[in-house]
Amino acid sequence: MIHKDHPRYKSLKLREKIVDAYKNGILAESGMIAHGRGEAFDYLLGEETTSNSKKAVQAAAAALILAKNPVISVNGNTVALVSNEIVKLADDLNARIEINLFHKTKKRISIIKNVLNDAGAKNILGTDHEAKALIKGLEGPRASSSREGVYIADVVLVPLEDGDRAEALVKLDKLLITIDLNPLSRTAKTATITIVDNIIRAIPNLIQAVHELNNVEDSTLHQIVRDFNNQENLDESLKKISDKHTGRVKP
Amino acid sequence: MIHKDHPRYKSLKLREKIVDAYKNGILAESGMIAHGRGEAFDYLLGEETTSNSKKAVQAAAAALILAKNPVISVNGNTVALVSNEIVKLADDLNARIEINLFHKTKKRISIIKNVLNDAGAKNILGTDHEAKALIKGLEGPRASSSREGVYIADVVLVPLEDGDRAEALVKLDKLLITIDLNPLSRTAKTATITIVDNIIRAIPNLIQAVHELNNVEDSTLHQIVRDFNNQENLDESLKKISDKHTGRVKP
Repeated sequence: MIHKDHPRYKSLKLREKIVDAYKNGILAESGMIAHGRGEAFDYLLGEETTSNSKKAVQAAAAALILAKNPVISVNGNTVALVSNEIVKLADDLNARIEINLFHKTKKRISIIKNVLNDAGAKNILGTDHEAKALIKGLEGPRASSSREGVYIADVVLVPLEDGDRAEALVKLDKLLITIDLNPLSRTAKTATITIVDNIIRAIPNLIQAVHELNNVEDSTLHQIVRDFNNQENLDESLKKISDKHTGRVKP
Repeated sequence: MIHKDHPRYKSLKLREKIVDAYKNGILAESGMIAHGRGEAFDYLLGEETTSNSKKAVQAAAAALILAKNPVISVNGNTVALVSNEIVKLADDLNARIEINLFHKTKKRISIIKNVLNDAGAKNILGTDHEAKALIKGLEGPRASSSREGVYIADVVLVPLEDGDRAEALVKLDKLLITIDLNPLSRTAKTATITIVDNIIRAIPNLIQAVHELNNVEDSTLHQIVRDFNNQENLDESLKKISDKHTGRVKP
């Protein structure tokens, strides 16, 4: 039992959720380690959404609304933390959900599929029951993508993606949206739009932004996407994180 | 198999070590998450020892050589990564090793004791076979310390310690040396001497510093300890991490 007064209560509750997800087979061991990395970067961010993250969320929502074939690619950590919200976002956008695991096993895919089904998702991609196509530039099981999903998608939202896969997807001319707490990561730098935030805040923010922009004219949405400069936004994010802490070591 | 060309090869090898330690019962789940946090901060540090870390290592070595009852307090992550080095350091300093786990179970203590024994340690404290004393200000199993160890120690080296325990030990007037990759953590700010570095680099550096300072006069060693200002050193560490990355998002 974590006491509500503990200075890191919220973070410790999330950690419990991650440990439970591991015990339920949703996560591989490395998923727990990845969560720890996220904890550290979120800590540096002050565990709150910045104005730069909000700007990226607006651009991401606009791009997703404009997409012909939007796909949300999920891994174990995403499903462990925000399965209900992902299903809601996919419904609102009429987007497909595709399971893409770094450490792929049939068992984990089936467990994750069940969690998403329980959250109300139908017709989930990335399982064994569909045609696959290989993504150029990747090797082994990670190269696989669904022919109806990521492979033909024009816009892919893929939170917590690794650098190799992000690069390969951008080379295929996809508009890549990622959510990554590390503004310095290869994925953050490679994506078209990077939301530097915790997915537990970013996905609800995206749902809200999609709702707000849903009846806005296409030309305005295109303008929002064009006006967004990912590199500039990452530079500003980093600057803010840095300013937040420098000279503030004193207890 | 991780390929040697992978840009994160070293970090991925360490991660394998941590996952193995978990599978062998050395670590709790939260130990894996804690490793992930460490990965993130080490990444920001550029995965190398800074001049500030070297300065802290000098002060720590001097304090440990001067100590009447030096104790090295170890947890699962420390033993998973540097058990041989910890035993060597304890031998060189004639220091006791005490096992102190955040998530304490008899089984984990016994597994960790075996790992340390295999690394050549004798007479390990923190097991069930000795008199215990409670540390004021802490609750539950975490309050327990060995009467021959941490409880009577004047200098305690405790890598990767949590904030509550660090504060309680400092209140007992112990000279507390910690190793923590996060210069902003409560532990880093509370300790007398904080080495902001990865333990896989810090412990070998400490062994070397102890070797170099071993025949130096006590008065000089006292001076080294007195001249060290932890808050100043943490501020400088943070400044360096920040300068390293700001404006460098460009791939």
